[in-house]
Amino acid sequence: MRRRAAVLGATGIVGQRLVSILSRHPWFELVAITASEKSSGRKYGEAVNWVIEDPIPESVKDLVLQQSLTDDVDIVFSALSADVAAEVEVNLARKGYFVVSNASNMRLDSTVPLLNPEVNAGHIEVLELQRKLYGWEGAILKVPNCVTAILTLALKPIFDEFGVDLVVVSTMQAISGAGLSGLPAMSIQDNIIPHIEGEEAKVENETRKIFGKLEQRGIVQCSINVTASCHRVPVLEGHSIAVFARLMKNTDPDEVIRAIESFKTNEIRNFGLPTAPKKPIIVRREVDRPQPRLDRKEGMAVVVGRIREDRALGGIKFFALGHNTIRGAAGTAVLIAELAVAKNLL
Amino acid sequence: MRRRAAVLGATGIVGQRLVSILSRHPWFELVAITASEKSSGRKYGEAVNWVIEDPIPESVKDLVLQQSLTDDVDIVFSALSADVAAEVEVNLARKGYFVVSNASNMRLDSTVPLLNPEVNAGHIEVLELQRKLYGWEGAILKVPNCVTAILTLALKPIFDEFGVDLVVVSTMQAISGAGLSGLPAMSIQDNIIPHIEGEEAKVENETRKIFGKLEQRGIVQCSINVTASCHRVPVLEGHSIAVFARLMKNTDPDEVIRAIESFKTNEIRNFGLPTAPKKPIIVRREVDRPQPRLDRKEGMAVVVGRIREDRALGGIKFFALGHNTIRGAAGTAVLIAELAVAKNLL
Amino acid sequence: MRRRAAVLGATGIVGQRLVSILSRHPWFELVAITASEKSSGRKYGEAVNWVIEDPIPESVKDLVLQQSLTDDVDIVFSALSADVAAEVEVNLARKGYFVVSNASNMRLDSTVPLLNPEVNAGHIEVLELQRKLYGWEGAILKVPNCVTAILTLALKPIFDEFGVDLVVVSTMQAISGAGLSGLPAMSIQDNIIPHIEGEEAKVENETRKIFGKLEQRGIVQCSINVTASCHRVPVLEGHSIAVFARLMKNTDPDEVIRAIESFKTNEIRNFGLPTAPKKPIIVRREVDRPQPRLDRKEGMAVVVGRIREDRALGGIKFFALGHNTIRGAAGTAVLIAELAVAKNLL
Amino acid sequence: MRRRAAVLGATGIVGQRLVSILSRHPWFELVAITASEKSSGRKYGEAVNWVIEDPIPESVKDLVLQQSLTDDVDIVFSALSADVAAEVEVNLARKGYFVVSNASNMRLDSTVPLLNPEVNAGHIEVLELQRKLYGWEGAILKVPNCVTAILTLALKPIFDEFGVDLVVVSTMQAISGAGLSGLPAMSIQDNIIPHIEGEEAKVENETRKIFGKLEQRGIVQCSINVTASCHRVPVLEGHSIAVFARLMKNTDPDEVIRAIESFKTNEIRNFGLPTAPKKPIIVRREVDRPQPRLDRKEGMAVVVGRIREDRALGGIKFFALGHNTIRGAAGTAVLIAELAVAKNLL
Repeated sequence: MRRRAAVLGATGIVGQRLVSILSRHPWFELVAITASEKSSGRKYGEAVNWVIEDPIPESVKDLVLQQSLTDDVDIVFSALSADVAAEVEVNLARKGYFVVSNASNMRLDSTVPLLNPEVNAGHIEVLELQRKLYGWEGAILKVPNCVTAILTLALKPIFDEFGVDLVVVSTMQAISGAGLSGLPAMSIQDNIIPHIEGEEAKVENETRKIFGKLEQRGIVQCSINVTASCHRVPVLEGHSIAVFARLMKNTDPDEVIRAIESFKTNEIRNFGLPTAPKKPIIVRREVDRPQPRLDRKEGMAVVVGRIREDRALGGIKFFALGHNTIRGAAGTAVLIAELAVAKNLL
Repeated sequence: MRRRAAVLGATGIVGQRLVSILSRHPWFELVAITASEKSSGRKYGEAVNWVIEDPIPESVKDLVLQQSLTDDVDIVFSALSADVAAEVEVNLARKGYFVVSNASNMRLDSTVPLLNPEVNAGHIEVLELQRKLYGWEGAILKVPNCVTAILTLALKPIFDEFGVDLVVVSTMQAISGAGLSGLPAMSIQDNIIPHIEGEEAKVENETRKIFGKLEQRGIVQCSINVTASCHRVPVLEGHSIAVFARLMKNTDPDEVIRAIESFKTNEIRNFGLPTAPKKPIIVRREVDRPQPRLDRKEGMAVVVGRIREDRALGGIKFFALGHNTIRGAAGTAVLIAELAVAKNLL
Repeated sequence: MRRRAAVLGATGIVGQRLVSILSRHPWFELVAITASEKSSGRKYGEAVNWVIEDPIPESVKDLVLQQSLTDDVDIVFSALSADVAAEVEVNLARKGYFVVSNASNMRLDSTVPLLNPEVNAGHIEVLELQRKLYGWEGAILKVPNCVTAILTLALKPIFDEFGVDLVVVSTMQAISGAGLSGLPAMSIQDNIIPHIEGEEAKVENETRKIFGKLEQRGIVQCSINVTASCHRVPVLEGHSIAVFARLMKNTDPDEVIRAIESFKTNEIRNFGLPTAPKKPIIVRREVDRPQPRLDRKEGMAVVVGRIREDRALGGIKFFALGHNTIRGAAGTAVLIAELAVAKNLL
Repeated sequence: MRRRAAVLGATGIVGQRLVSILSRHPWFELVAITASEKSSGRKYGEAVNWVIEDPIPESVKDLVLQQSLTDDVDIVFSALSADVAAEVEVNLARKGYFVVSNASNMRLDSTVPLLNPEVNAGHIEVLELQRKLYGWEGAILKVPNCVTAILTLALKPIFDEFGVDLVVVSTMQAISGAGLSGLPAMSIQDNIIPHIEGEEAKVENETRKIFGKLEQRGIVQCSINVTASCHRVPVLEGHSIAVFARLMKNTDPDEVIRAIESFKTNEIRNFGLPTAPKKPIIVRREVDRPQPRLDRKEGMAVVVGRIREDRALGGIKFFALGHNTIRGAAGTAVLIAELAVAKNLL
């Protein structure tokens, strides 16, 4: 018996990914979708500007877009923008809905689990505190910022085995991260834009929270130093990240590769979640990989390469790639929902 | 009376920039050009695949490409590849030619001046030692690697006023840096390539040499720690660099901007060199500049922006842009030659 | 003594081109600029997102954007969108303003001159009829659609010397044609869009009008058959057009080239207009030119190449390129204004 | 029992597509691969620069590349360049091999079947004449030029139902058509190249042959007039074609759509070939489709859209898209081989 699911903001790029993944999901059944006033009342197949490589799912084509959620569903996936989400999601939680959200608001709330399941599945336990504190029966769980999701997964085995006290991050982020029509072609053609509103603070703060600890008063950020510089590049999908990490133990690239490939501390290792990739972190040994066009197809897995010593910083440097609308958004949202099912939370 | 100049490797992208600049230069007259066997014997206007935005200079169209330099010229600009340059340039120096070269070989030789004139014009004095050591009457002077030229110029006033002991550099480098046909379109379309052969070591080592000191035994590298990660992006021209610098003095972005804009230690400040930009470093205050497509037109000037505090590293971070085939190659070569004229070396 | 000029819609891409050209124009002085409510009241230099390769003119930076034109000027250049222009331009004409407009409305009105000056300068005489008919003292003159401006200029000498009775046109149009933010990057990255709203009818109808005759009742379209297919491609600036023309006289490519290069019927040949290019049509003989990135720098001149026999159609085929926001919009607007000055109309 | 197959030129882009398709083919088993001297002797997985979105097949990774074919195989797929193919393929045919080739040489030989199976499967019967004439036991069959394959499939139902006597074709061709490293990024970034060597003649001649008749003396070209203008655009994969067709019967777009969608004259309609798409021609009704990035995923099917009346020409115009390395090369090669199996020719 599959859980009934809804997608809020189903016509955007993350909404489309959610629809695509849920339409062929063994545990969830997509029964309700919402969109802004402009599209509500129309059939999904007619209202959406479908841009995903897989065809639009037949089962969803005739679903009618609602302006707000009224159905009785087991789980709500939100792809709303932060300004809209702020009110809508809280209202849903009050009504008892279980909400997994991609919106950036509340991500740093210490009672809101900000989950990248392989990295910090345990943080989901904070929901108990959330319900007590906010006095609602529903729940709000947050998907990390796209870069943060990719970065923290790539760093997790390194963090656990060698200790990391400083991370310098320079990103090359895909166009799709700005949404379906968020970025004019005139701005990015043959160009780079060295600024993404709010992104650097998100990467810095969310990384500290994800590697933080669940304590009685909620999740407490860890003390890792993170500095980020974020840039938009003319690539369709796939965020690339140059990572420089100062480590607390001496090591060498081979040991780091072994740590990544064994990934013993993967927190959902034996959970059998359908969307969890077999190898969450793929190591490429070629000198020039990963590349977004060739490796974004890995979807939920992050691909790292060029793992090399960094003597100047005292640690290692490497290059990481992840699919920003899958691992960085919709896919991780679904993985969080699967985790909740595995934990009997819905 | 203008000095007679030759360009070696005149049909490549750097060769074209040299030809373009020299064709309208007040101090130099382009009288000889060479190219590989394939093109030699042909008129420049027929052999070259001219890709520069300015029209091909009328005065050069009918010059015949030679396979090797035989003319008596005052100065030789080399845009040869390192493997060819290794033999050719040494032979020319032995014959008494004054060679300003873009080739990467010999750049770390302690008796070869590696010049970014605003930064280390004084290093040109090492030529005396070079001549003594190698026993030739000519001279070899090197243009830094393209990223290094942009980076060290942007860093110079910061280095001088606040002290820098660690620089983390992540580059987004233009297609033109790979030469006219060095990079297949299939490789870079909608993509990023996280590897440029030998580039990171060049940036790290050359930066230390350029900020180094001229001592009796030659130029001695300074102890600044530099770590680089270099990436190719689908941008035609203009290298972008995310820079994170740990500083030795406390400061804030406003002070850094003031230091850059006054740039008191510019080593060629009062030399009146024709190719020297009035403001070698332009500071943009918008949140999203510089951008390669909009700001590469500055040519010899480096454009920096997004100067902000970096608490994680203990210093600042900023974004720098330079025209890779002008400031990063041909323009700096000509500026070096002008410096030599100003110093009465030719 | 320069004429006082205003630009309506000065912050858009065509508006920027107009500002750029007028700021260094010998006959006109830019004294007033307007923009939509969002930007009006602000200084131009602060409100505009300047994207042109030349720097923003110092003389215009401090001009304050008005919401509507109130100044007393000699000429108004309009870069308004058609929906806004419909009311505004007519009102201005009623108030006595002389309006040269890029907006597409009224282009097919038989008393409105639709001018590509080298091709049909004579049509400007219809203004007398316009004033009589509409009862206003001002005037409305229209710049052709961007493709049509490029196409009709390239065709003019062929039309005059050999007769053309069928033209098949397939365009590859630049991103800038959709305006500063008209086209999302997600739509055009690594893609082609085979549709531009209304464009094909414009090319077909406006071509017939431009090659039409001025008769007593106004301009009468000629009977040339034109069929167009219009496509957006990922190129920043420069519209490319594949043209197949059935000719009424037998000829060969060499004769066509001679006809183009002599261009005896250029209607403004001896007018000495400042913005008129010396060679309005440049013929390239290489097999692979023109190319938008290399040849759009010609600005007001159209570049044609690959002129070859077309036996299937009975005529010739060739490839034409023009700068869409200069020859296809702002530059031609200024050229029209210069024509009006030469004709003592302002 | 699967037929044993070889791929010549297996490391190139068409070679990779062949390897990818054959590795999961029900009728063929890939047992031998060749490459040029540079790569021969190495394992495929190590020698190839794999760029296809599907992962490199495990079953082929360890196959060793040979310099020339020595194995006993049932069928040879050739992705050799025309200059190499000229000798190699004839020698193989003499030795008795059955060769399906993408190389352009011999395509216009009247005894060589140039096959786009849905369009002219019957032409395969000319093999008997070929064997007689050349005196070999093997066979050479040719895949059409990429544009021609897409064009003739799209035209087939229109040709059969309404008659076509003139086709004007303007192409926008993908980078991958130039091979893995055939096109430098500097040439096509932000640009269009209006020339592809030999392409226009191929489209014109091969279209006439494919729509031609098999007679006693071989295949005789039909008299349809075709004129093409071919252009390279910055799109990774998927050739776009603007088609203008003069028809011999009056019709309207709706009737044309009906003719395409029923496609009664599909020559392999009931053959059950594994690589034949269920709907060989997909009609899109949106105003802005097909688009290469969104619709190239159809692989073997051609997608057409914007079917509209063309009054100027007396017929229709439309926009067609096909995957150039699948329908335009490797996929059609495999479909031809399947046809040969169905006809008991191997």
